[in-house]
Amino acid sequence: MTEHKKDSEEAAKSGDNRLSAKGGESAPDGKDGTNLLDGINSPDDLRALPESSLAQVCSDIRARLISELSHNPGHFASSMGAVELTVALHYVYNTPYDRIVWDVGHQAYAHKLLTGRRDRFADNRKMGGLSGFPNPDESEYDTFTAGHASNSISAALGMAIATQLKKDSPLRKVVAVTGDASISGGLAFEGLNNAANSNNDLTIILNDNNMSIDPNVGSLHSYLAHINTRKGYNNLRFKVYNFLRRHGLISESRRGFILRFNNALKAALSGEQNIFEGLNIRYFGPFNGHDIDKVVKVLRETKDMKGPKILHFRTRKGKGFAPAEADPANWHAPGKFDPVTGERLTGDGTPKPPKYQDVFGETLLEMAREDSNIVAITAAMPSGTSVSVMQEAIPERVFDVGISEGHAVTFAGGLAKDGMRPVVAIYSSFLQRAYDHIVHDVAIQRLPVIFAIDRAGLVGEDGVTHHGTFDIAYLRVIPGMTIASPRNEQWLRTLMATAMAQTDGPFAIRYPRGSATSAANWHTPLKAAPVGKGEVLHDPDKPDVVILSVGPIAGNVAKAIDLLAEKGIKAAHYDAVYIKPLDSELLDRAIGLNVPVVTVEDASASGGFGSAVAEYIAAKGLTRPLTIIGIPDNFVTQGTVPQLQQLCGLDPEGICRTVQDAVAAVSPQNTAKQ
Amino acid sequence: MTEHKKDSEEAAKSGDNRLSAKGGESAPDGKDGTNLLDGINSPDDLRALPESSLAQVCSDIRARLISELSHNPGHFASSMGAVELTVALHYVYNTPYDRIVWDVGHQAYAHKLLTGRRDRFADNRKMGGLSGFPNPDESEYDTFTAGHASNSISAALGMAIATQLKKDSPLRKVVAVTGDASISGGLAFEGLNNAANSNNDLTIILNDNNMSIDPNVGSLHSYLAHINTRKGYNNLRFKVYNFLRRHGLISESRRGFILRFNNALKAALSGEQNIFEGLNIRYFGPFNGHDIDKVVKVLRETKDMKGPKILHFRTRKGKGFAPAEADPANWHAPGKFDPVTGERLTGDGTPKPPKYQDVFGETLLEMAREDSNIVAITAAMPSGTSVSVMQEAIPERVFDVGISEGHAVTFAGGLAKDGMRPVVAIYSSFLQRAYDHIVHDVAIQRLPVIFAIDRAGLVGEDGVTHHGTFDIAYLRVIPGMTIASPRNEQWLRTLMATAMAQTDGPFAIRYPRGSATSAANWHTPLKAAPVGKGEVLHDPDKPDVVILSVGPIAGNVAKAIDLLAEKGIKAAHYDAVYIKPLDSELLDRAIGLNVPVVTVEDASASGGFGSAVAEYIAAKGLTRPLTIIGIPDNFVTQGTVPQLQQLCGLDPEGICRTVQDAVAAVSPQNTAKQ
Repeated sequence: MTEHKKDSEEAAKSGDNRLSAKGGESAPDGKDGTNLLDGINSPDDLRALPESSLAQVCSDIRARLISELSHNPGHFASSMGAVELTVALHYVYNTPYDRIVWDVGHQAYAHKLLTGRRDRFADNRKMGGLSGFPNPDESEYDTFTAGHASNSISAALGMAIATQLKKDSPLRKVVAVTGDASISGGLAFEGLNNAANSNNDLTIILNDNNMSIDPNVGSLHSYLAHINTRKGYNNLRFKVYNFLRRHGLISESRRGFILRFNNALKAALSGEQNIFEGLNIRYFGPFNGHDIDKVVKVLRETKDMKGPKILHFRTRKGKGFAPAEADPANWHAPGKFDPVTGERLTGDGTPKPPKYQDVFGETLLEMAREDSNIVAITAAMPSGTSVSVMQEAIPERVFDVGISEGHAVTFAGGLAKDGMRPVVAIYSSFLQRAYDHIVHDVAIQRLPVIFAIDRAGLVGEDGVTHHGTFDIAYLRVIPGMTIASPRNEQWLRTLMATAMAQTDGPFAIRYPRGSATSAANWHTPLKAAPVGKGEVLHDPDKPDVVILSVGPIAGNVAKAIDLLAEKGIKAAHYDAVYIKPLDSELLDRAIGLNVPVVTVEDASASGGFGSAVAEYIAAKGLTRPLTIIGIPDNFVTQGTVPQLQQLCGLDPEGICRTVQDAVAAVSPQNTAKQ
Repeated sequence: MTEHKKDSEEAAKSGDNRLSAKGGESAPDGKDGTNLLDGINSPDDLRALPESSLAQVCSDIRARLISELSHNPGHFASSMGAVELTVALHYVYNTPYDRIVWDVGHQAYAHKLLTGRRDRFADNRKMGGLSGFPNPDESEYDTFTAGHASNSISAALGMAIATQLKKDSPLRKVVAVTGDASISGGLAFEGLNNAANSNNDLTIILNDNNMSIDPNVGSLHSYLAHINTRKGYNNLRFKVYNFLRRHGLISESRRGFILRFNNALKAALSGEQNIFEGLNIRYFGPFNGHDIDKVVKVLRETKDMKGPKILHFRTRKGKGFAPAEADPANWHAPGKFDPVTGERLTGDGTPKPPKYQDVFGETLLEMAREDSNIVAITAAMPSGTSVSVMQEAIPERVFDVGISEGHAVTFAGGLAKDGMRPVVAIYSSFLQRAYDHIVHDVAIQRLPVIFAIDRAGLVGEDGVTHHGTFDIAYLRVIPGMTIASPRNEQWLRTLMATAMAQTDGPFAIRYPRGSATSAANWHTPLKAAPVGKGEVLHDPDKPDVVILSVGPIAGNVAKAIDLLAEKGIKAAHYDAVYIKPLDSELLDRAIGLNVPVVTVEDASASGGFGSAVAEYIAAKGLTRPLTIIGIPDNFVTQGTVPQLQQLCGLDPEGICRTVQDAVAAVSPQNTAKQ
């Protein structure tokens, strides 16, 4: 208590008058068996507790995470590992006035539980419920969008500079919480490089659990794993710092000196290179991130320190639940499980269709066994993309480059330039990070890099940051790009074979997260098809409308056609398969029917496949009534895929309604009369 | 000679049988005053020279660069600074079998002179001539596309891995040549992070001239500037390495040990942190990059070294031409100059229109003086974007983040989140590097970040990597994005004021490189206009066609309309100003004319403004003959802007022809008959 009070007093003196002044003398410490978490409706309540209760709060949070996530699946292991950090951050910092900026956000469930969202946690990741990631639309405690890795340092630096420029009183404290995987991303490095060189008091927490979703890679990771700062050195360092502070010897003007002194001290004591201090950013650690007293102490002692600094905490993914600690990759997002035994609950045993990922992974291995030039690249997602299948069998030809999508693509460019056949498997929304690399390092040189664009279209529960809805538009404008999307698992195999047979320029195959269409055997013979050729799926005589779809949304279109038939509307259905180049023969046939044309895609309607069809019709010098069905021009929330399809009008009923309207709208006065 | 011969013999023994065997005993050494460069038609000729001639070759190259660039403008100072490095690389390495991968490529003119393109150098940057950057379509010595910074390490790593996987005999040696500015980019860090941790023999040359185009920034830069490896240490290090190598004590299996030994030695001797060695990548340097003998020696001694390594060379931008050495930023691409005095040749003194950049820069300062929340961000291009105008006047509110476009945008997101009004000025083609950051860190949160997209459209001589032609398509798909383009300098001011008045979501203003429309005063009152409102420019009675344009291409459209009038075709002309949101009133008026619609934009036709108009017409349930004029679906070469406009059909004559065709094509049989 003494330290806490002293700290509050100091903070108050320094003008930080928003710090909770409730004290905590009469607050429960949980030692009588009460659940302390149930009494915390905001961080103010947490800050009112005595420091001795914090371990109990951590324990209560873990119990809640286990009980909730066992039946309502989410990101489990990361959040379990960050409990002490989260509790200590809200305890020491005056949130939400002070800013905590999470990175990725897989680890932010404890943060949600502590910031007034405990009662809504049962609706985590559900439509209308809490977002699975920090989301500023949801809470003022969620300071910045998280979901794509490595952005926290840059965003937090912006906030740290803003509070200075605005001369806030007191200045807000800003903390970026990044992970050992996130910090390997180029964006994080750019953020560090700028944070270290500008006037700001940013605190960067490095939550080092030695894992991203899969085990971590890269030399920075190796560096962190082997960083070896002696206990004695850390203690000395803190003592020196506190001594200087007590004696008023630390001031902004002396910071450069102190830093150099610390660096020299450290180098002398440890005999190691410190990358961060090489970058002129003060480094403290590593500390045990599960020792709540230690974490609170470190945060408190560094809170008012001038200048940017990194605090390195070692944590364990899955901490507090033995099965997850033992196998953290599998417990990243485990699905349902038994909260006592950790037994994973699986389905009812009836045969299920394979996932597109399974088909991709096994087909990739099948092709790689036949062609020694095939290599695969993943950016920290070997299991998510199923590149792991090839990785296990032919590890020397699989490259997990960590969270480095840009490098993944440019590296693939280099491999392709010298004769290899790289397959780059990246989620659609993360591939946005590599946009320039696709243009500049692959497409301009017409290099035959194959992009396996996983998680294309609506992804479901991961929500707004993870939907892969922009890829058609952003790729279609790139000259020489081939873009296709398989309707089913057999077509995925065919497109992979076709892409490998093409040697001039990049070839992108976009396919969704999750189950393919049929439980039947998909191990059809692997055979290339002509590039740019679609397929007529349904071709009734004298149709009222022709529907052109691309990708697995063809399944919903087929159902919509049945519904339309019940209403007496005859619809033809063509699968374009290719977005670029378009199948001109198929399109001419569709246009030649002289009926309204409807396009359907599981992607943004702006600039997408429907837009390409509109351009095609215009370029032919023709006019046709055209209806484009795709994701409307809004960011899409989370929910199940069927819920979101309904929201976007991409469910069978929605498609049916829009097609009905398109047919009804056709009357002579609506056509041009030049 | 002795050393050179020994090296050749060693290389031959190691199977490197492509090394030039011409010897050089009878080759001229230039000491008689002959120009040695004139005798070098390929690197083989260079390698046939005695080492004692290389200084003369460097001198000849510099003389040629000065004489050529004085009348045919290009990138001067960078190439002058990299002459010794270039000569030494081609002398020591067996190019083109061995790979030299340049970064950015501003520095590659000497490389072009040495690799069979001497006679074509007079056509540098001209249409049909040499590309101003390394270009694999032009020469096998240009191993990878360069132009956007920081890609060389990743691409070279791909090549270094490819040669191992393909078991080339001999293995190709791969060298990435990066600069001190390029290496601060996130992509370079991702490349280093992966290079250091995988099995490869990559050599990374760090050409450290202490500058990017403008003076360099960031803590990595500070680090390089202060790196202080004692001469004694470097000598010792080399001696130790060579001793171990001679005694067969260095092998792949012992590399880890040697590296740790070197690190410990270095730390002990220098008392400094070495970032690169912290990342487990062997570091040598810094060396004088203008001492040709030293450079050759270092390259030769490290050439067969196993594992990835960085060789750090200090160079001087503009070396060998005093005026450029004294002011390297201004001599980056100086235009025409007097080859003797260095006097810069300017125009004839007649009043010229301002550049869009001038208008932007001065207007930005004008607005920033009125609103203390306005901050500006540039990624290493303060002078190119004219952010320098505000930087000089209000340095504390201008942030040059170095070559870090992703960070620039995410940092702006953080600033905007806490109440600042950031203006991010980045060239269109470089903004591709920040695509995900625009989506994830700005647009999802509807943060009011203003994007000043400079160099939008065709940029001219910088060519294929620098044209800003994809931005409309890649931005238009982002929900909540406002995208506008000014027709002239007054509209640029109006759009800047309008963007600042909008507080909900990002606002992008795209404008071209170079001169605005009029030499008349552009200092019109600064006033916001309604968002999404275009302008009717020409509205004849009963037109034959309506032309919708966006941006400064309106000037060519106006000329085309004059040409059309001569042919008896009456064209209406509306300036949409906004690509998103579209001006529905203006579009309805255009569509209501019931004549063919033609759209014109200085951007890719796929998914762009014309495509948006097509989507709009379709969404209205209407049909109209539509012709989209934009940049065709090809990468565009270099040339003057008028030449390139002609190539793309965007010159007045081209627009006139296409509009004529559109009008001629309209006949009843071409419209739909449902």
